[in-house]
Amino acid sequence: MNGTLGGLFVVLMTPLDDSGSQDEGSLGRMLDYYVGAGVRGFTVLAESSERDRLSNREKEANLKTVFDKLQGKLPIVVGTGRESTQLTIEESLSAEARGATALMVSPPKNPKLRDQTIFDFFAAVGDSVGIPLVIQDFPQNDRPYMSPELIARVHHEVKNAQYLKLEDAPTSVKLEKVKALVGESLKVFGALYGKDAFWELDQGAVGIMTATATPEYLVSMLDAFFRGNRSRALDIYLYTLPLAHFLADIGVAVRKEILVQRGVIRTAKMKQPASELTISARKQLAETLRWVELRMSETLGVKPHRLVSDRLP
Amino acid sequence: MNGTLGGLFVVLMTPLDDSGSQDEGSLGRMLDYYVGAGVRGFTVLAESSERDRLSNREKEANLKTVFDKLQGKLPIVVGTGRESTQLTIEESLSAEARGATALMVSPPKNPKLRDQTIFDFFAAVGDSVGIPLVIQDFPQNDRPYMSPELIARVHHEVKNAQYLKLEDAPTSVKLEKVKALVGESLKVFGALYGKDAFWELDQGAVGIMTATATPEYLVSMLDAFFRGNRSRALDIYLYTLPLAHFLADIGVAVRKEILVQRGVIRTAKMKQPASELTISARKQLAETLRWVELRMSETLGVKPHRLVSDRLP
Amino acid sequence: MNGTLGGLFVVLMTPLDDSGSQDEGSLGRMLDYYVGAGVRGFTVLAESSERDRLSNREKEANLKTVFDKLQGKLPIVVGTGRESTQLTIEESLSAEARGATALMVSPPKNPKLRDQTIFDFFAAVGDSVGIPLVIQDFPQNDRPYMSPELIARVHHEVKNAQYLKLEDAPTSVKLEKVKALVGESLKVFGALYGKDAFWELDQGAVGIMTATATPEYLVSMLDAFFRGNRSRALDIYLYTLPLAHFLADIGVAVRKEILVQRGVIRTAKMKQPASELTISARKQLAETLRWVELRMSETLGVKPHRLVSDRLP
Amino acid sequence: MNGTLGGLFVVLMTPLDDSGSQDEGSLGRMLDYYVGAGVRGFTVLAESSERDRLSNREKEANLKTVFDKLQGKLPIVVGTGRESTQLTIEESLSAEARGATALMVSPPKNPKLRDQTIFDFFAAVGDSVGIPLVIQDFPQNDRPYMSPELIARVHHEVKNAQYLKLEDAPTSVKLEKVKALVGESLKVFGALYGKDAFWELDQGAVGIMTATATPEYLVSMLDAFFRGNRSRALDIYLYTLPLAHFLADIGVAVRKEILVQRGVIRTAKMKQPASELTISARKQLAETLRWVELRMSETLGVKPHRLVSDRLP
Repeated sequence: MNGTLGGLFVVLMTPLDDSGSQDEGSLGRMLDYYVGAGVRGFTVLAESSERDRLSNREKEANLKTVFDKLQGKLPIVVGTGRESTQLTIEESLSAEARGATALMVSPPKNPKLRDQTIFDFFAAVGDSVGIPLVIQDFPQNDRPYMSPELIARVHHEVKNAQYLKLEDAPTSVKLEKVKALVGESLKVFGALYGKDAFWELDQGAVGIMTATATPEYLVSMLDAFFRGNRSRALDIYLYTLPLAHFLADIGVAVRKEILVQRGVIRTAKMKQPASELTISARKQLAETLRWVELRMSETLGVKPHRLVSDRLP
Repeated sequence: MNGTLGGLFVVLMTPLDDSGSQDEGSLGRMLDYYVGAGVRGFTVLAESSERDRLSNREKEANLKTVFDKLQGKLPIVVGTGRESTQLTIEESLSAEARGATALMVSPPKNPKLRDQTIFDFFAAVGDSVGIPLVIQDFPQNDRPYMSPELIARVHHEVKNAQYLKLEDAPTSVKLEKVKALVGESLKVFGALYGKDAFWELDQGAVGIMTATATPEYLVSMLDAFFRGNRSRALDIYLYTLPLAHFLADIGVAVRKEILVQRGVIRTAKMKQPASELTISARKQLAETLRWVELRMSETLGVKPHRLVSDRLP
Repeated sequence: MNGTLGGLFVVLMTPLDDSGSQDEGSLGRMLDYYVGAGVRGFTVLAESSERDRLSNREKEANLKTVFDKLQGKLPIVVGTGRESTQLTIEESLSAEARGATALMVSPPKNPKLRDQTIFDFFAAVGDSVGIPLVIQDFPQNDRPYMSPELIARVHHEVKNAQYLKLEDAPTSVKLEKVKALVGESLKVFGALYGKDAFWELDQGAVGIMTATATPEYLVSMLDAFFRGNRSRALDIYLYTLPLAHFLADIGVAVRKEILVQRGVIRTAKMKQPASELTISARKQLAETLRWVELRMSETLGVKPHRLVSDRLP
Repeated sequence: MNGTLGGLFVVLMTPLDDSGSQDEGSLGRMLDYYVGAGVRGFTVLAESSERDRLSNREKEANLKTVFDKLQGKLPIVVGTGRESTQLTIEESLSAEARGATALMVSPPKNPKLRDQTIFDFFAAVGDSVGIPLVIQDFPQNDRPYMSPELIARVHHEVKNAQYLKLEDAPTSVKLEKVKALVGESLKVFGALYGKDAFWELDQGAVGIMTATATPEYLVSMLDAFFRGNRSRALDIYLYTLPLAHFLADIGVAVRKEILVQRGVIRTAKMKQPASELTISARKQLAETLRWVELRMSETLGVKPHRLVSDRLP
């Protein structure tokens, strides 16, 4: 756990029951499913977890389930960025006390935050904890832009700002610019559903941190790449790209639906108000999933991952 | 308390101490200050309260202070709009149980929410409680646009959607359109710091609901208007307009600074990250305040309101 | 030319020379290239043509080259949406006089335009010309949202509003909603680089209108689909998807680079200021293109299209 | 004309006739009206001129009328910022050839333009002409943010970037920051309808450049301020503030309506689609105007400016 983080870190979505509340049975099966697929760690209470739409009770139950079940066997990154410095520090201290491996932190939702203010925010958070920070560069949903220079400054001056989750598209282009400023000392995770995962690795990313429903493909791509089989990694990336891009505007709903189709969770419901898949979209997704599974299986020998440790009752 | 709400409802800002935490002593003095100025009610945990930046502990303490101190003598509207329908309902039920007079609810922060989704959100919230809703029409900070037709539909079909806080500029223009659809049955509050308060009254608003630091002016304007002295109300409105517009982009910080200059609260700090007034801006504000106070006092006989029930130690 | 428009309509990008001015030699070769690939029509002076960055002289030369070269053998849709109703009408009348088959029109860049205003805009434009309108539903770059109901109203009440270019993602979901209101009478083109082209066809699109650099793939996909070979169409769609999504944020620069790599145009320059491909991105694109060309050729027998009528000197 | 620009520069709106076309008679009267009020210069073809909604013919006629009528007696700043570097240079060269005193240039409408790209844009434009540039800092309508550091760099490295029109609210706060970096060498104009005009002067602005319909008030405020009568200037500013803020979201329509009420132009029409004043808003504006005129006349002895050189037939 004290080594460098890398490989596939799954951002854990929140499965819901028919009433729209967190389904802890499904959450447990998700953990089994991902662990069985060989992921290297988990990122919890992130934006794809619908964090801002969960009740305090649900967030607490989520953390408890994950920490209890993983028992320290895999690193856990907790998303603790909130709308103020003070709240972010409170959440960060709480996560550290619970045993989090690292903290993922994005600046508050205010596109008018400027460089010095963002720097001060990260410095205050970094100074208050003793575990690494994953800077989340996600200039969407009203979050501010962070220049490569600002990211480098945060990394250089905030001692535990050791990781970057880069999701400012086009990510591989920005990654190259950031790397030119920080070299190897800042460890970068690709993100955004793995849409540009191969090119991110090609530019030096140490892993991918995203909500995926087909972890076997990212795991096998990362394995191939880091074993030096670039060509196989590229094949896996390109064959599986249709899943990364399928209705990406409602990508969490898409990934929940795949988990339903694979028998991992009960429903693909989202915390309302949010878009869910239409009947047509579910059929299209099933066709796409079958196509990718078939190609991956027949051409590259990667079988679809199945949940084996549990079954929906 | 069961009558129709109207007049000046003060949106209660959150005073902070030097460490940036809620200052409950100042909060108490603010309540005295506003009650002494003759406000007709309070709106708490609104956006100008920096609600999303307060800790749960601070929000609970805020509500407790306000409810304990007011003892049912004035109506209290609680802001309970949150990022999901479920959270909004939970907060609304909790506020109702605590004795709230009404609930102020805006749609979640997602500019892509469409009419039917927004309607369903209000219907679900309205059906879950027994007290009136104040629909907050505030299409800023990533919140969605609501057409006059949509607002009218929510009012007509959700039985307790009896009030509207209209803050979609230009407000007096939209107010006229909404009124053409709903007549007198929807009670509308003006907002946005009272920038268009007189014209909102002229179009039929029943009151103003905003974070003001000079409540005596809005109170006297409303009194004059409702007593039929339109000309005096217009004078008050126009003489005091410089305060309504002073650095409106950071208007909460401005209003806190006025309360500091008037001795009501200790600091003008904001939950970070957020802009505060520069030294220059504080001087400009002091000049503006003096100018308005002098004109109002000499020309219209409205003296500056002072806090009498307490003093900063 | 009087029949119904459908199939692949290429949105014509503007090739530039080293000085950044329109390169008419390359433009001529592009026309040969696309005609040779079997496209069914052209759409010119669209957003992907960098229209708002061209000089009046360049726009005039562009139209002259296209109309002279095509000689009425293929339909030409001209993008005539401008920032005011009056300018849009002037451009539309001018394009009609020149022999345009239809006019592509999006609302002006103002996200606060409301339904009635947008309707009035289309009605005024439609009434002023005698050829069909392609309503462009492109709520990006500050353009307003158009609901399915509004699109249906424009179609039903503006007699020549016969086509829709739908680029409000997720497009196939919106297409299904629009179709539920208008049936077959509104002809819909898919768009957005063909990212969801297959699903758009599946929902009833009559064609795809986009800036593609590999027209042979969209042509063969459309052929397969309309001949009833759905499975082959889906294969083509999924194998070629990596090209549709490659650095889509700077998609015009990507498509120009492919045309350079295929020898059709001289440079991949963009009218400044605009992003161009980095050296790394050009290599990544070349790898992606080779991968797709190989799969398409070996697996589905679709050879890469080459320019045969001309050569770069 | 070779001295330093300063004082009130009126941004010239475009008066329209009943058919919505530019009304050159009204344009001529506007020039008389403003010259008679003692303005120090004109800024033409700016955003408040509805420039992007005018036809090429109208823009040419506008420039011809202004240059012919002013005959070099007052400086003319021409707005030449366009959507590409090339177009901006073309427009700038053309304006310089016509005799423009300076060029007002804002970056293109793309909020994702970054510092180096914006710098390169200004450098390319500055290098191509021999007259001063007014950098327009107007991060609205999709234009990018410019930091004080970036503005200082453009000023220091682009030799003719001698002026700044600062309209990034709160302007007086940004002005202080910019001044701390550039001292007196960059001449700054306040803007945004004069909403913060007095504070901008207080921070060192050399003038105000805005579309006003009551130029006598800004002229008298500037006179008082520069003659050292700060108190009188503040009085003028605060008494006239209601006009600066009246329905500022549709401020051009408001200012046209005042010109109609004062008999300068024929209609308050706007190039469609754009909001115009409702009947109610026109009445409110008339009341506000009368109130301000009366206070200014009785309290400060500034009579309302009237057009004397011409009359509407």
